[in-house]
Amino acid sequence: MSSQDNGQVYGRVALIGLGLIASSMFWAMKRAGLAGEVTGYARSQETRETARQIGLCDRVCDSAQEAVKDADLVVLCVPVGAMGPVMKDIAPVLKPGATVSDVGSVKRHVIDAVQPHIPEGVHFVPAHPLAGTEHSGPESGFAELFDNRWSLLVPVEGTDSQAVEQLRKLWEGMGANVDVMDADHHDLVLAVTSHTPHLIAYTMVGVADDLRRVTDSEVIKYSAAGFRDFTRIAASDPTMWRDVFLTNKDATLEILGRFTEELFALQRAIRTGDGEHLHDYFTRTRAIRRGIIEAGQDTDAPDFGRGQKK
Amino acid sequence: MSSQDNGQVYGRVALIGLGLIASSMFWAMKRAGLAGEVTGYARSQETRETARQIGLCDRVCDSAQEAVKDADLVVLCVPVGAMGPVMKDIAPVLKPGATVSDVGSVKRHVIDAVQPHIPEGVHFVPAHPLAGTEHSGPESGFAELFDNRWSLLVPVEGTDSQAVEQLRKLWEGMGANVDVMDADHHDLVLAVTSHTPHLIAYTMVGVADDLRRVTDSEVIKYSAAGFRDFTRIAASDPTMWRDVFLTNKDATLEILGRFTEELFALQRAIRTGDGEHLHDYFTRTRAIRRGIIEAGQDTDAPDFGRGQKK
Repeated sequence: MSSQDNGQVYGRVALIGLGLIASSMFWAMKRAGLAGEVTGYARSQETRETARQIGLCDRVCDSAQEAVKDADLVVLCVPVGAMGPVMKDIAPVLKPGATVSDVGSVKRHVIDAVQPHIPEGVHFVPAHPLAGTEHSGPESGFAELFDNRWSLLVPVEGTDSQAVEQLRKLWEGMGANVDVMDADHHDLVLAVTSHTPHLIAYTMVGVADDLRRVTDSEVIKYSAAGFRDFTRIAASDPTMWRDVFLTNKDATLEILGRFTEELFALQRAIRTGDGEHLHDYFTRTRAIRRGIIEAGQDTDAPDFGRGQKK
Repeated sequence: MSSQDNGQVYGRVALIGLGLIASSMFWAMKRAGLAGEVTGYARSQETRETARQIGLCDRVCDSAQEAVKDADLVVLCVPVGAMGPVMKDIAPVLKPGATVSDVGSVKRHVIDAVQPHIPEGVHFVPAHPLAGTEHSGPESGFAELFDNRWSLLVPVEGTDSQAVEQLRKLWEGMGANVDVMDADHHDLVLAVTSHTPHLIAYTMVGVADDLRRVTDSEVIKYSAAGFRDFTRIAASDPTMWRDVFLTNKDATLEILGRFTEELFALQRAIRTGDGEHLHDYFTRTRAIRRGIIEAGQDTDAPDFGRGQKK
């Protein structure tokens, strides 16, 4: 069966881990007919049963080894800290010539954990789709998640370029734009655009929760005034984020250091009443927002979290 | 003319300052027929001309004094730092029995700046609608801005209760839910739910902008992964926010102190590899998010900033 004739990019794809990203990948692959058969595996029996009930994956298997058998592409969609052990488990049964990829938010650590287990003749092309919602689990996925979002491919040295191109085709077929990036640079860029913002949002929500003189119900009722966006970020999957911070430690700590330095400068401006410093700073940050709207990564339409479900 | 017969709450309303909040109030009052005539004034001639072109206000005046003449309600919609001078200017021409209100994000400072200029026989009922977008200026307003949002009334001691009830009716007519709150408590609650989150978002966007090894275009391209929500917050009006921080200094500095304390604890957990601490913290913050969705202050539908324009 040629994969060129009908839009198929891979004959068989195995998704290991069935959360938000894997389930969205399944629906996105189905939407465009990118894979002949998609198998799936999740460690929890409950997740596997849910997947079977909602038709997530053509076949849900009771072991990772069963799921990856004869697969042309295996995508590891488990938390970053679990990638190594899962890879070690499936390595012996991988089909020669298959490609292994992943969707982890950290790339250097995943490469260090997975690469040593990749058998001779199997390709390894790490990837990271920059898309997500505050929801997790097999029922949270939807086909449009990756539309017009970026997916970063982070191939290791000596990777077969055809394997990279095939994976690129899959991601583009799922609606994403694809860039190729070095692992260390990826981890720094993500520390800035994702990891540190998440940590800060978690912290701010935790502060509000702690504060005795402001009741929980007040925090919740009056959240529209800025705080709500933080709670959306801080509702993401705890296990995934724990692993991100533990495995992208250096870049996150570096950006956090810069963040507190700047925060202290603004704090001093507030304390000393330096309005000019504050005004200049706030004016500068507006320009970045305009850039994001112009780059098509957001809309300037007011929605206030009331956007309609697709 | 009785205001009971036709839904009117005030015969004549004057809006001083014609930005996002004032322009949304105008359209919301028109939508429900809450005011007989609405006059408006803005300091900048350009803003007044824009207002005239788009039909914002029944009559745009070239001085604040002219706008407030014979008004039953005057709403100060200028940055917090400008409230005192504006009030001093209009005080001599206010109609006896009129109500003066405002929409400032800080209440203790506004009360201290405005109250001394309120003439005998004029009511003063400070207010603060918890609604906004990243946009500002006379063209940014729309009638639905306050729908199902909270507007807080912060009456000073001895305020005529009928004046408070009339203003409550106006805000409810514009779609808002109304609560009454003490000024100092208001300023603390807002420091938690709005002011500190804004400062943090500004800071994080500034850090990204500074970082030499990550280019601007990368920050912008890959912003979907959390950072985008920060840029939306950090795009708000610089003058408004400068005044907020300068005038709600004590509460903001207190919450900032708690924030950095908690951030340092999480930073230490990352540095020492304390995954349990991180996981527990991230699990706790999820509950607050659920509360916000249940309270109807947000939706759990995925929208990713792609919400449709109304």
